[in-house]
Amino acid sequence: MDVRAAVAHAAGQPLTLETVQLEGPQPGEVLIEVMATGVCHTDAFTLSGEDPEGAFPAILGHEGAGIVREVGPGVKSLKPGDHVIPLYTPECRECDYCLHPKTNLCQAIRTTQGQGLMPDGTSRFSLNGKPILHYMGCSTFANFTVLPEIALAKVRSDAPFDKICYIGCGVTTGVGAVVFDAKVEPGSNVVVFGLGGIGLNVIQGARMVGANKIIGIDLNESKVGIAREFGMTDFINPSQTDDLIEAIADLTNGGADYSFECIGNVNTMRQALECCHKGWGESIIIGVAGAGQEISTRPFQLVTGRVWRGTAFGGARGRTDVPKIVDWYMDGKIDIDKLITHKMPLDDINAAFDLMHAGESIRSVIEF
Amino acid sequence: MDVRAAVAHAAGQPLTLETVQLEGPQPGEVLIEVMATGVCHTDAFTLSGEDPEGAFPAILGHEGAGIVREVGPGVKSLKPGDHVIPLYTPECRECDYCLHPKTNLCQAIRTTQGQGLMPDGTSRFSLNGKPILHYMGCSTFANFTVLPEIALAKVRSDAPFDKICYIGCGVTTGVGAVVFDAKVEPGSNVVVFGLGGIGLNVIQGARMVGANKIIGIDLNESKVGIAREFGMTDFINPSQTDDLIEAIADLTNGGADYSFECIGNVNTMRQALECCHKGWGESIIIGVAGAGQEISTRPFQLVTGRVWRGTAFGGARGRTDVPKIVDWYMDGKIDIDKLITHKMPLDDINAAFDLMHAGESIRSVIEF
Repeated sequence: MDVRAAVAHAAGQPLTLETVQLEGPQPGEVLIEVMATGVCHTDAFTLSGEDPEGAFPAILGHEGAGIVREVGPGVKSLKPGDHVIPLYTPECRECDYCLHPKTNLCQAIRTTQGQGLMPDGTSRFSLNGKPILHYMGCSTFANFTVLPEIALAKVRSDAPFDKICYIGCGVTTGVGAVVFDAKVEPGSNVVVFGLGGIGLNVIQGARMVGANKIIGIDLNESKVGIAREFGMTDFINPSQTDDLIEAIADLTNGGADYSFECIGNVNTMRQALECCHKGWGESIIIGVAGAGQEISTRPFQLVTGRVWRGTAFGGARGRTDVPKIVDWYMDGKIDIDKLITHKMPLDDINAAFDLMHAGESIRSVIEF
Repeated sequence: MDVRAAVAHAAGQPLTLETVQLEGPQPGEVLIEVMATGVCHTDAFTLSGEDPEGAFPAILGHEGAGIVREVGPGVKSLKPGDHVIPLYTPECRECDYCLHPKTNLCQAIRTTQGQGLMPDGTSRFSLNGKPILHYMGCSTFANFTVLPEIALAKVRSDAPFDKICYIGCGVTTGVGAVVFDAKVEPGSNVVVFGLGGIGLNVIQGARMVGANKIIGIDLNESKVGIAREFGMTDFINPSQTDDLIEAIADLTNGGADYSFECIGNVNTMRQALECCHKGWGESIIIGVAGAGQEISTRPFQLVTGRVWRGTAFGGARGRTDVPKIVDWYMDGKIDIDKLITHKMPLDDINAAFDLMHAGESIRSVIEF
């Protein structure tokens, strides 16, 4: 079938709007109509050419929501009409990772996904007879796409696509890091480095679970207002304090119970660890650092009880946990509406990248 | 009273055997007769002058076992005749740390302990009228010593002093790291860097809790025999393999569930983290690195699910957990006898340091 897609032909080039061909679902696969998709920094990272795994031509986009239109042979958990969120971290419920209690990093289709291919090693997309690669197993910058059944979370049908698409990546990454990875307890003091979209979702996750102090750290004060609306209780601009670690200790009776690095800077990752409370503070790395960069600290920081860990997709097991997060949004426990600062049609998708690079958007959403 | 002690008068000098004066217990304090004490690397570290907190003159020793001879006013949990193990990490059961579920680092007397003083800010030891400092709150290189009640674990009276003294530091540090900090589950694959006394205790802790593979790593093969007796299932000499991380992955179906660094080398600390299994592997730093040295890794290691943590005194809450470890020894679940390679009277204590430096002992024990 013909579908409308924004194609990334090469690194560093704007996306090109084109009509491409999409094959129907093979066994275990599902055709969905994409109703909305967010435009995320990870899409921009790959498009820039800095992503060592990036390959072209591809249809980017991994933060979508849509409706099942057709299922391939053997698909049991989904049927046409179901509302779904694509999962770049699938959940097969059968691999060693899915069966391990401590991880969400299902590896069932990782190799082919990393190559931009479906599990059978081929692509469903093509243009003029030449294959176009999938991206993160999702390719939501197209009005129809095909995914494996294990990479689709079935969600309630009364949730608006233009909001819950953000649960496909940013919301889950931030809220999930608090809930599923750190398992922040009520009364905890939480420190959040970086008040971008991920940081704001960490903040509202911490509020949802009953954190005590929620301290935001950013050199840029433009997000202080919305951060306070989302639950931030205190703000520190590192440029305004002589000793950030001490300033955090003063606010928290000795240090953070949990800190979250949402920037991707190895220096703030170190600060995030070292601002944790002796004995029990845990620091969770969410941000993605530049290629080859390293974190460091004195081992004494760990020997005296701090824990250093990281998170991907918020520790969420997609098919199990994403529907819960949709419920939390629909129940008003978390907010998404205020984070969607811009909406546009697919034809204007390059403007979404421009807004992101200019720091003017928290999240732009494409509605089909 | 007059007591016989090995006094450290200055850094880098041998200990001097002397008769020193010991005051009786003040309120909340307990006089014990030391029956046996191990000689540990930490004593040697302080004696060398490299310990930035080291102060002289002092009576070293922190790995003892003895009998309560007198209790000061207000002491409720101990009485003369009780068998005890001194705790350099006390357990007051009242401070923020004792009341926190994730740490054993009781801070009740930390400041004065670090200064070599009793909680009231004075010393009980003196020589010719001049005070001699306590050490790690224990000072077990004397046939009598005074400790706070909160720094004594009451243990069963049928356990031999010359063995259970080792539970005062080395055994608990290794076995406890497995049991209380890592919480290794049955069937886990465990990797142990360094087959010294701590590493051997990690190995037998892992065996006790039902680990699957227990892989020892050391450049020196002299301890391979005893390590196998203690439960090591596989051994790798890093000098005999091109890629240690890969060799470990091959043995463990992808990586360690838990790794323990028992050397104090920041390079092996990095290897210990990076040999862990993606998604869930946890690395625990036990070894103490040189002053100012730093650990480093790519944050990707953590974002893909590895966890980096440390441990002190094996995560044991001394008054609660040390008696359990004595039981495990008496029940044959762990072995101590084979680790006590040398015994000597206090007069020969400098020989214990020589044996340690020469790598000829696992543990030397002084019997009074």
